[in-house]
Amino acid sequence: MLSQVVVGAKRPTLSSAAFFSRGMQTVTLIPGDGIGPEISSAVMKIFEAAKAPIRWEERNVTAIKGPGGRWMIPPDAKESMDRNKIGLKGPLKTPIAAGHPSMNLLLRKTFDLYANVRPCVSIEGYKTPYTNVDLVTIRENTEGEYSGIEHVIVEGVVQSIKLITEDASRRIAEYAFEYARNNQRSSVTAVHKANIMRMSDGLFLRKCREVAEGYKDIKFTEMYLDTVCLNMVQDPTQFDVLVMPNLYGDILSDLCAGLIGGLGVTPSGNIGANGVAIFESVHGTAPDIAGLDMANPTALLLSAVMMLRHMGLHDYGNKIQTACFDTIRDKKVTHTDTHSTP
Amino acid sequence: MLSQVVVGAKRPTLSSAAFFSRGMQTVTLIPGDGIGPEISSAVMKIFEAAKAPIRWEERNVTAIKGPGGRWMIPPDAKESMDRNKIGLKGPLKTPIAAGHPSMNLLLRKTFDLYANVRPCVSIEGYKTPYTNVDLVTIRENTEGEYSGIEHVIVEGVVQSIKLITEDASRRIAEYAFEYARNNQRSSVTAVHKANIMRMSDGLFLRKCREVAEGYKDIKFTEMYLDTVCLNMVQDPTQFDVLVMPNLYGDILSDLCAGLIGGLGVTPSGNIGANGVAIFESVHGTAPDIAGLDMANPTALLLSAVMMLRHMGLHDYGNKIQTACFDTIRDKKVTHTDTHSTP
Ligand SMILES: CC(C)[C@H](C(=O)O)[C@@H](O)C(=O)O
Ligand SMILES: CC(C)[C@H](C(=O)O)[C@@H](O)C(=O)O
Repeated sequence: MLSQVVVGAKRPTLSSAAFFSRGMQTVTLIPGDGIGPEISSAVMKIFEAAKAPIRWEERNVTAIKGPGGRWMIPPDAKESMDRNKIGLKGPLKTPIAAGHPSMNLLLRKTFDLYANVRPCVSIEGYKTPYTNVDLVTIRENTEGEYSGIEHVIVEGVVQSIKLITEDASRRIAEYAFEYARNNQRSSVTAVHKANIMRMSDGLFLRKCREVAEGYKDIKFTEMYLDTVCLNMVQDPTQFDVLVMPNLYGDILSDLCAGLIGGLGVTPSGNIGANGVAIFESVHGTAPDIAGLDMANPTALLLSAVMMLRHMGLHDYGNKIQTACFDTIRDKKVTHTDTHSTP
Repeated sequence: MLSQVVVGAKRPTLSSAAFFSRGMQTVTLIPGDGIGPEISSAVMKIFEAAKAPIRWEERNVTAIKGPGGRWMIPPDAKESMDRNKIGLKGPLKTPIAAGHPSMNLLLRKTFDLYANVRPCVSIEGYKTPYTNVDLVTIRENTEGEYSGIEHVIVEGVVQSIKLITEDASRRIAEYAFEYARNNQRSSVTAVHKANIMRMSDGLFLRKCREVAEGYKDIKFTEMYLDTVCLNMVQDPTQFDVLVMPNLYGDILSDLCAGLIGGLGVTPSGNIGANGVAIFESVHGTAPDIAGLDMANPTALLLSAVMMLRHMGLHDYGNKIQTACFDTIRDKKVTHTDTHSTP
């Protein structure tokens, strides 16, 4: 039974998965730091057992300084992703050195992965104060508060610029409605603070409204971010698909992950144009337990399931997801520690 | 019994409370819109029963256009607050007209009420998924994402400016640590996204660290906003005093209110320099039930209790709070509907 493999997932040799190569699709695997390699191995082992037609092309990602001093990801990782279009990624450590970018952000930027998608679904057997959570946060992933534009105006006065564009707002709104339609979801809520940031969030909201016009089959609502947070902890079952600017998505996706058990069990996908996408676990690298083979691979595994569906391999995705949930429900897990801080 | 009064609180004539005037302190009362007048009357009735030495000076607050077209609050309200220094305020409706400011924000700005303080404490008899919540969010109330500075750069590209200053950051950090010390609280957590907004949130965080140096009796920690949200819904009892920039406070204070029952039961205080302060319920005006005398006055009452403590009238504050909590615990309430959307 596949669920047995999920329990006992040990590290296969990296080449073994590359064996089945007929009708296979190649995926760039970025194992990441800390517990990254061992949870990646666990996922590979499970994919092998499920006979998922995936060949892995492993690449390391550490920031390097390119011409002109700009930070970039290593050329062989870039080339692999450009060719394969699809990546699976474990956690990457956040560098401490000032000026060094977050590798997670650099990857999103390099491949223009404009939509961050995080389904949050209650897991049977994983007890939290909430049941029947079944929602998806869709976060604009390229601009907003993450523009990186900041200035010192005068000593002691700093400004950060939040940048909202019509194009990015329309693009993410369209993504959200398409997602809702393709995933049999019935409503999309735009999350904003247009009562305060009237121009920027106002623009975002206007684009959502415009796009909503084209999706009469999907119910559209608007809600202030603070009100969403309040309602979310009171009754998350009232929400379905939520779409929002970058920072709000960062906050709300973590909040929602908390409702169902934390980042250790929450999958994430970063989606770009033309099918390009990187799926990733968003928990930390947990250096304290790295190498002990006790890290929980659930978040990466469920991210890999999202990946399979994105590639049209629904049967494999469903099979592995069922095995994963069965394993958790039947308590065939040795360790459910989750790591929420990168 | 005072709790009987809490249950049956009906509208007294506005003048009746002004009767006891020896040793009394005058407070500016802004009843507000919708359910505002009736919950204000309920509070006045309870204060009367408790013999709290407060005389109310009622003022209406609707924005008016001053010289040069600047929005301002009515001069008689301003004059009253300038004289009394202390205000109690019901909900104000958020105007729809573009360009019209939020009256709540205009009040905070007019009186430089730089600290928004919201204690969130689990209420016995008010069932939520959480117990033993006992934390306080302290929000910088004057700048940050609420600067109101926005521009269209080119068509379809908008920027909003988040302004963080050394002075406001130090001031709010000092307020938080003083609050912790004076209220027998043991830790302060600075909430930030300095991994993304390195300069602005970085400055805020630096000031928190500096101020923390002077409060060795209080434990100081730092946490990313997303991590706080995740941890908050998993176990709010790990938090004590939290201090943060404006928008994060807006979000987190509502989230925390949700944990204990919503804005209908959560008090709030806006504190300025030299004792100036306005205490307010932060729920909506609930026009649908206004005038029916069924609105829950708990949030305004608990805000009035915060006010009494702020004025040094701890005995009265404690007496009324006990009566209020007894009433809720003993289910002597006819209606607990809360209104979370302004
Ligand atoms: C690691 C960090 C830069 C990142 C973010 O803030 O977006 C993380 O919190 C996330 O949600 O993926
Ligand atoms: C009414 C609104 C402008 C206000 C805010 O965003 O600050 C409210 O949400 C609050 O928290 O007091």
